[in-house]
Amino acid sequence: QVCRWSTNHLDSNTDTIHFFCNYEESRGNYLVDVDGNRMLDVYTQISSIPIGYNHPALMKVMTNPNNVSAFVNRPALGILPPENFPDKLIESLLSIAPSGMTRVQTMACGSCSNENAFKTMFIWYRNKERGYANPSEQEVGTCMINQSPGCPDLSILSFMGAFHGRTLGCLATTHSKVIHKLDIPSFDWPIAPFPKLQYPLEEFVRENAQEEARCLEEVEDLIVKWRQKGKPVAGIVIEPIQAEGGDNHASPDFFIKLRNIARKHGCAFHVDEVQTGGGTTGKFWAHEHWGLDDPADVVSFSKKLLTGGYYHRDELQPDKPYRIFNTWMGDPSKNLFLSEVLNVIRRENLLEEVTRSGKALLQGLYALQTQYPHILSRARGQGTFCAIDACNDATRDSIMIKARNKGLFMGSCGEKTIRFRPTLVFKEYHVHQLLNILNDVLAEHK
Amino acid sequence: QVCRWSTNHLDSNTDTIHFFCNYEESRGNYLVDVDGNRMLDVYTQISSIPIGYNHPALMKVMTNPNNVSAFVNRPALGILPPENFPDKLIESLLSIAPSGMTRVQTMACGSCSNENAFKTMFIWYRNKERGYANPSEQEVGTCMINQSPGCPDLSILSFMGAFHGRTLGCLATTHSKVIHKLDIPSFDWPIAPFPKLQYPLEEFVRENAQEEARCLEEVEDLIVKWRQKGKPVAGIVIEPIQAEGGDNHASPDFFIKLRNIARKHGCAFHVDEVQTGGGTTGKFWAHEHWGLDDPADVVSFSKKLLTGGYYHRDELQPDKPYRIFNTWMGDPSKNLFLSEVLNVIRRENLLEEVTRSGKALLQGLYALQTQYPHILSRARGQGTFCAIDACNDATRDSIMIKARNKGLFMGSCGEKTIRFRPTLVFKEYHVHQLLNILNDVLAEHK
Repeated sequence: QVCRWSTNHLDSNTDTIHFFCNYEESRGNYLVDVDGNRMLDVYTQISSIPIGYNHPALMKVMTNPNNVSAFVNRPALGILPPENFPDKLIESLLSIAPSGMTRVQTMACGSCSNENAFKTMFIWYRNKERGYANPSEQEVGTCMINQSPGCPDLSILSFMGAFHGRTLGCLATTHSKVIHKLDIPSFDWPIAPFPKLQYPLEEFVRENAQEEARCLEEVEDLIVKWRQKGKPVAGIVIEPIQAEGGDNHASPDFFIKLRNIARKHGCAFHVDEVQTGGGTTGKFWAHEHWGLDDPADVVSFSKKLLTGGYYHRDELQPDKPYRIFNTWMGDPSKNLFLSEVLNVIRRENLLEEVTRSGKALLQGLYALQTQYPHILSRARGQGTFCAIDACNDATRDSIMIKARNKGLFMGSCGEKTIRFRPTLVFKEYHVHQLLNILNDVLAEHK
Repeated sequence: QVCRWSTNHLDSNTDTIHFFCNYEESRGNYLVDVDGNRMLDVYTQISSIPIGYNHPALMKVMTNPNNVSAFVNRPALGILPPENFPDKLIESLLSIAPSGMTRVQTMACGSCSNENAFKTMFIWYRNKERGYANPSEQEVGTCMINQSPGCPDLSILSFMGAFHGRTLGCLATTHSKVIHKLDIPSFDWPIAPFPKLQYPLEEFVRENAQEEARCLEEVEDLIVKWRQKGKPVAGIVIEPIQAEGGDNHASPDFFIKLRNIARKHGCAFHVDEVQTGGGTTGKFWAHEHWGLDDPADVVSFSKKLLTGGYYHRDELQPDKPYRIFNTWMGDPSKNLFLSEVLNVIRRENLLEEVTRSGKALLQGLYALQTQYPHILSRARGQGTFCAIDACNDATRDSIMIKARNKGLFMGSCGEKTIRFRPTLVFKEYHVHQLLNILNDVLAEHK
């Protein structure tokens, strides 16, 4: 049933294809494949479908004649924005700006968002270093030939298990899988350990606090060490929940202390919400769960937001035009869809739904791991952003295939983790359907 | 009349904004601003509008109910492509594949295209180096922490004046403007001189051949030097015409010899057609003008193609799935538009039109520089991909503003160059309109 790309005219990663889809027939939480099989989809195009397939509110965007021009005439937003673009930004992205974030820059995808967020932090850091003076002649001369001081030896501190994208700058901060990294030149940037917590978090408070303290100590050591090496840390980048790396959580206390370390050492603090953002944790931004006194410096997004981009504080505004720039700088047609998504989220109180469904999902996963302790462990999650580990990767893969044959399509992450990334319109009855199928699969599992 | 972003809610590069546009009212080659001013647009959103504003063929894509799903449900193309995606690729991107290019990988934008093209070349090069064996334990271990040999010290050779994008990998091969490069960490990769030719090319054949020979010699020297440094050149990347860097041309002979040097030293040869591709030089790909015996290894594109991506030879196919991968891997809705653009190009013989209009434009520019030799020089071009230099940047900028006030919107590049990047539906009568306005501006110029 799983059809594969057979023609060798076509590129490349054909082995990555799970199956071909009939998107016309897909609805809400249900993805339909080319053979007409209908599956409850809790992977949602790698967590990028916010309110389900073919949502009527999004279909209406397409049939509204006022919108046609935004699709047909993609502008160079940085120089020739459409008349209504500032208003559209205010009613869409700026209406959901995380606390302290006064500015937003759209980009086409998650990688470009993080690449440009890194650049914004480098520019900010160097401007501080030279006291906001004009660059020296030596800087101007050397930058054109990739040499310091014009292209300075600055670094971004990231965490083992992190995923921030796969373009060369992003990839230097990504440490989740060998296949992402092998053979690609990189930067000598510091990599801190991410806490390895024990679940459920409530039962291991003391052990987890110790583990987090160990990691934070290492962060400070690395910042000092890299400064001494002549490669100062301009920014720290972190996901609120490491997704691709295996759904690894840390406590609000960990992130608050990390933010304080960043401030203490003059590093920017960049929260990568590409996968966690958009409501799936029960708040629009996962880092709202931390209760930060002092906001982040940069928050990047993509996926469920449909457009990429990043917010930042006033202070990180580049000092000159064209420092952050490319041809398209995003895509206004994606903003049109986002506005509708936000309307639906508000109108239907979807963040509350997510919290309710998430609670039911996590309770159900706890019950399953109690029932099948030889197969499942470490159920964890926030909102519907949930995960559970299998005893090994072969078992995980087998569970996923059997579930798919019973009409449940899930994703994987880390070494042996199943990740749940349903839409925001994933209700409690979908949770029960999911748990029933999973229970059937586990009951049959030898 | 030029309205500027005044609210400081909004990011960032507000000083880059030329004016706000009314895209609904714009048609064909004419861009309309918010005040109703109608301009002949020969900059076309930084060369990214293929067949003009609001082309009826593209409007029809929007009103065809069969297409709605492709807009509303953006898939994770790498794992869950739509049913018709292979056919759509064959009728669109593969129907225009450059000679020797059997595979295509779509991406969301030009920078991502080049980033992933570079990665494809690195993977290919390292696989050759290790004899297509599995990576060593040491490689697997070191790659996760950004260290060699897992993240090898490979390089990409680029040219002074080049522009290949502004994400960190691309930016290491971009050397056109300080504002692009300053304060951003980079790689120690070799940079060769790009020929500085004298125009018109026909009149300086011997001098230009000498200059090109000098640059090619330097390329070989750099390849040897970087190999000795332990940072072998995995690939050479070059634009057929350096656009952002000032519309710098080189002869077919230069590129053929460069291709031979790449092969001789085992480097991949990557032609960046992000700005030159799509028909504007009179052939669909600018490098078709060279008459290469042995095709390029990689050809990247974006802008007028509406989707980003790159073609490559079979041999550069990554050895494992997921080596080149991201969430969206392009956007099928952009492919729908591209198919229509290609239909229009074929039906209306637009490449012939471009050749005809281009000839008239270049002749007209020659005439203007003869008439105003104290102001203009170095008229050059291929198809409608034309440029002319002003005597200095202030004069260039003043001419551009005056022309805009008379209804002609042009772009700049390099230090003092005006670049012409009209659509493919730019006819001879548009050329005459352009030349008339330019002549008026020059006649008034003090």
